[in-house]
Amino acid sequence: MTQSLKAAVIGAGRIGLVHAASVTDTEGVTLEYVVDPISESAERVARAYHCKAATDPLAVINSGEIDLVIIGSPTPTHVPLMEAAIDAGVHVLCEKPIDLDIKNVDRLRDKANNSKTHVGIGFNRRLDPQYNTVKQRVDKGDIGKVEQVIIISRDPGPAPQSYIAVSGGIFRDMTIHDFDMARFFVPHIVEVFASGTNSFCDYIKEENDFDNVTVTMKGAAGEIVTIINSRHSAFGYDQRIEVFGDKGMLQTSNLTHSTVQLFSKEATSSAEPFMDNFLERHAVSYRRELQLFIKGIQEGKQYNSTYDDGRAALLLADAAHESSRTGKAIPINLM
Amino acid sequence: MTQSLKAAVIGAGRIGLVHAASVTDTEGVTLEYVVDPISESAERVARAYHCKAATDPLAVINSGEIDLVIIGSPTPTHVPLMEAAIDAGVHVLCEKPIDLDIKNVDRLRDKANNSKTHVGIGFNRRLDPQYNTVKQRVDKGDIGKVEQVIIISRDPGPAPQSYIAVSGGIFRDMTIHDFDMARFFVPHIVEVFASGTNSFCDYIKEENDFDNVTVTMKGAAGEIVTIINSRHSAFGYDQRIEVFGDKGMLQTSNLTHSTVQLFSKEATSSAEPFMDNFLERHAVSYRRELQLFIKGIQEGKQYNSTYDDGRAALLLADAAHESSRTGKAIPINLM
Amino acid sequence: MTQSLKAAVIGAGRIGLVHAASVTDTEGVTLEYVVDPISESAERVARAYHCKAATDPLAVINSGEIDLVIIGSPTPTHVPLMEAAIDAGVHVLCEKPIDLDIKNVDRLRDKANNSKTHVGIGFNRRLDPQYNTVKQRVDKGDIGKVEQVIIISRDPGPAPQSYIAVSGGIFRDMTIHDFDMARFFVPHIVEVFASGTNSFCDYIKEENDFDNVTVTMKGAAGEIVTIINSRHSAFGYDQRIEVFGDKGMLQTSNLTHSTVQLFSKEATSSAEPFMDNFLERHAVSYRRELQLFIKGIQEGKQYNSTYDDGRAALLLADAAHESSRTGKAIPINLM
Amino acid sequence: MTQSLKAAVIGAGRIGLVHAASVTDTEGVTLEYVVDPISESAERVARAYHCKAATDPLAVINSGEIDLVIIGSPTPTHVPLMEAAIDAGVHVLCEKPIDLDIKNVDRLRDKANNSKTHVGIGFNRRLDPQYNTVKQRVDKGDIGKVEQVIIISRDPGPAPQSYIAVSGGIFRDMTIHDFDMARFFVPHIVEVFASGTNSFCDYIKEENDFDNVTVTMKGAAGEIVTIINSRHSAFGYDQRIEVFGDKGMLQTSNLTHSTVQLFSKEATSSAEPFMDNFLERHAVSYRRELQLFIKGIQEGKQYNSTYDDGRAALLLADAAHESSRTGKAIPINLM
Repeated sequence: MTQSLKAAVIGAGRIGLVHAASVTDTEGVTLEYVVDPISESAERVARAYHCKAATDPLAVINSGEIDLVIIGSPTPTHVPLMEAAIDAGVHVLCEKPIDLDIKNVDRLRDKANNSKTHVGIGFNRRLDPQYNTVKQRVDKGDIGKVEQVIIISRDPGPAPQSYIAVSGGIFRDMTIHDFDMARFFVPHIVEVFASGTNSFCDYIKEENDFDNVTVTMKGAAGEIVTIINSRHSAFGYDQRIEVFGDKGMLQTSNLTHSTVQLFSKEATSSAEPFMDNFLERHAVSYRRELQLFIKGIQEGKQYNSTYDDGRAALLLADAAHESSRTGKAIPINLM
Repeated sequence: MTQSLKAAVIGAGRIGLVHAASVTDTEGVTLEYVVDPISESAERVARAYHCKAATDPLAVINSGEIDLVIIGSPTPTHVPLMEAAIDAGVHVLCEKPIDLDIKNVDRLRDKANNSKTHVGIGFNRRLDPQYNTVKQRVDKGDIGKVEQVIIISRDPGPAPQSYIAVSGGIFRDMTIHDFDMARFFVPHIVEVFASGTNSFCDYIKEENDFDNVTVTMKGAAGEIVTIINSRHSAFGYDQRIEVFGDKGMLQTSNLTHSTVQLFSKEATSSAEPFMDNFLERHAVSYRRELQLFIKGIQEGKQYNSTYDDGRAALLLADAAHESSRTGKAIPINLM
Repeated sequence: MTQSLKAAVIGAGRIGLVHAASVTDTEGVTLEYVVDPISESAERVARAYHCKAATDPLAVINSGEIDLVIIGSPTPTHVPLMEAAIDAGVHVLCEKPIDLDIKNVDRLRDKANNSKTHVGIGFNRRLDPQYNTVKQRVDKGDIGKVEQVIIISRDPGPAPQSYIAVSGGIFRDMTIHDFDMARFFVPHIVEVFASGTNSFCDYIKEENDFDNVTVTMKGAAGEIVTIINSRHSAFGYDQRIEVFGDKGMLQTSNLTHSTVQLFSKEATSSAEPFMDNFLERHAVSYRRELQLFIKGIQEGKQYNSTYDDGRAALLLADAAHESSRTGKAIPINLM
Repeated sequence: MTQSLKAAVIGAGRIGLVHAASVTDTEGVTLEYVVDPISESAERVARAYHCKAATDPLAVINSGEIDLVIIGSPTPTHVPLMEAAIDAGVHVLCEKPIDLDIKNVDRLRDKANNSKTHVGIGFNRRLDPQYNTVKQRVDKGDIGKVEQVIIISRDPGPAPQSYIAVSGGIFRDMTIHDFDMARFFVPHIVEVFASGTNSFCDYIKEENDFDNVTVTMKGAAGEIVTIINSRHSAFGYDQRIEVFGDKGMLQTSNLTHSTVQLFSKEATSSAEPFMDNFLERHAVSYRRELQLFIKGIQEGKQYNSTYDDGRAALLLADAAHESSRTGKAIPINLM
């Protein structure tokens, strides 16, 4: 039996908690540290998960006590902490996005791609059972050659203004997941057009950001990818894809807690609303993300999104941002 | 081109109107007469469909002016009018049930089975596109050998007490359609058990009838058929079947006017209620029933339910009636 | 009772046949003439529908024998025949598109808009029970303020090269229906972006046309409309819309001939393929189109798409054509 | 924080493994012992779950080392082991059925009902998220007064002949789950009719047992419950219920691993087959069963099926057995 890897989770916020729980539940890895500059937060999580608390991430990364770090702290800390981990010979799984500025991403690119330890970027949706099943069936040839991909992704409600202000804009903050999903099916995107409007949220408009957007992209083999986003959805978290090929189409539907349907005078076959919370909706994929990262380390393989996948998503987001302001389709080179 | 058959519709009530409309819309047949003892009713329908009105069905049947009679008058008139039509050499399509008393049915049996003109019984549901597709796929072998048939049939609301009083009871009036549907898939029924209760309607109880019933039947090859009926349904006309075989299962669902779904805060994927009216729900099958009857006459074949199908349904209803009163399974011989 | 209007159908091709059947089945209108330059075609249809055949449409329009003309002849004849009908005081229902050249459309615009007789353009899909139900529920406020409209429309297979060559391109020929559908929900479009690729059909590429396209449009109130088209679909005619508002979403699904589902070892809940033929899929809406046109004449109202609706769809198609060649979003003014 | 209860799992077979895993994953309980007369089996499971192995269940129950015993050994051991646990002051959760002979069940009845420690019977399906949601909505009044319950339950394939031979017959072995589910919605059953056939499995016939059965039951308030069972299902584990009331109907559907649908030339909306394995299908409910048992102990309440629920299910199974052999409806008194 392989020895258990010792892990630190950096960030004791919502995402950090998810990762702490995943580490605890995953074989082959043990939670050693939870790190947060606010010591109370770190300690509260540490108590819940029976591990040590710390406030200085660099000290933990360089402590020699850990094999693996999971970065769930704010975006500006991602690049420096990944770099520290690579330098310290520690495996690193980092939340998306790598950074909001492509220059910072590019600066670490060579080092990340040549790292002796594993570097993974947390695009967990590729690992969602729904999307993953679609990918497997596409790869098996069920729908022939992919021609069109439609990604619909709507959040239950907008983040607060303070978050929007530092989010880098909807394309870099929210659509970035869909850019990665697009590349799951069409890796070689060559052109991006984006369109955004302000339909319902005044403070998003104040921040010069959009609340509803659509992105159209072309792939190198003539594929067309369409992404449709909204910052709100009255019926809960709305996440669906449709992959259309020359031999058929694969489609996911949203998830509810049960499949129970009510037939009444007012309506036929009415089910409960969709799940409202991305942590709940994607609980399985967060777990699988870590399991695959551990498996990759054990086998010397890469099962997670790579640094360059993270970079590609940001390049697409930047192009969408530009396109939505200029009204022009933007050619792109992801190599 | 074959010459158009001249038809009389007997009965200017709800069902008579349906048949008058069918005749008008069907090629190969022309509406000559609408007959009803209430001359105003006959005349009103005759005006709408541009045909002659009459009050005496026997006179019309024997007038020599018609090739075909469709009987939609009250049940006690069915056997005498069918007999008159057979005697007059007129084709006859008669609404279900043949009669509420098996003795009357048996009295005409030989004459009906040896008639030189066509005799058809109006079990239109066999011709419904939903049920008919199931039958075709069963016959094609899609589910292998039939083992279980489940028929769920609920009316939107109970008929008035005056109707219940002369209906012959739920098994002979309502379940009779389902007995015929059962024999569509399992012709050789050998045993009947039925159970009935009074759940919601006082005047049905007053008439010594049930408002909710279940029937279990065995087929000669070990098939089990289950029928579930209710005299009301809050969500509209509820008609479904499920045919289970050793290689798979075929299932119909109910119909709504459109497939539009609403996703809202309260519920996901809520559609409009089911159709409330059997005439609307089964409009297509009433039309097809007449088309096949005409086609049968033209080709010298029998595409509709036969007199003996009508008799079998009544025998099953009688057995169910007895079983529901005695608590015993009733052996039956439909030959 | 109002007197029956006398109608001529111009064009004895596929679409002409549909209109001839509709006239025959619709109350308040009688088929007098079928007109086609190929006299054999006209006569064959005339025999089937018991009306007169003719080869010269202008002669029929000016004969004084008809009240109403339905134009189903090739696109270049639409404007001259509409003009002749208006001049002759004959009501005219014309198939889409009005013309492939906006100059020709604009030339007749004032005369069409000031015509004393009714002028309707045949965008039948607005009258499809599915789409119409969505519109009614949107108007009733079921989803609040419309924010996003997604229209997916895929043909079963590409038209032959000879047709593509004179079609005016996919945007003017196929997407034009979707432009009209977009305006059903968002009348005031202010910007169009379009993207097209060549994925599967060599002869469409030879004609400098696309086989897969996506269009993104903005409405005056910040709505985003997305249209996704393909010239083929392995699973049959694929036509769906999704209208997303701040209080919910309405969605249609495709239609099959029955709702029967097969559950087997290989797959759960497998239904038959979608309808393959637009005439079959839209039979009801062609019928309703004529019924509403007759009703409009009788009541002095306009229930069908107007000349300006037809013009708007062409303007959007032209803008999409330009955008797909330049990579730029095109501002548009439909007034 | 409450102290963790120490548990023993008796039986190292398929069901024992499920319970061992549940104990390990559930807060408030720790696995101390796995017991099986075959010491190798006990030791293999003990190694996997880091607990002690034993071969003598009575010794473990009386060891003073455990607070709680979960009985997953063969049916004839259930009553003696439950009695030993009650005598030893140990909480006991016992797999269904209590026993195949009602005399044995009745012998322990008073002692079980007066036990100072908790006694629960493992009818886990009540705790399945699907069924439980239906129950909650019924209790909330969503469908008004319950009138009809339809339970469809088909196993993927028949158990081996050796198992059938000692199973007590399909009603006591398989339908017993559905009898408990029936009582979840209609506790006071007053009459049972059952019908069984031999459709596909020779060795089931050799054992004088049925492979397809239907049960009809009446409730004290006039409810009708219908159970439909088959020992095989080509499309996997088929478990559905439909609860019909005077204000509406609630319905569950089967579960697949994902909701992905394939639309192809052959079929529209084809999903993957249903789950094939009851352990997989009911994994969640086995877990919840233990969680609720622990919660009940902690709070001094009873959240699981009681001894009398287990007895009632056996009484119904006995009545069904008798009815299926005599063709008579059997009155029943569950008090």
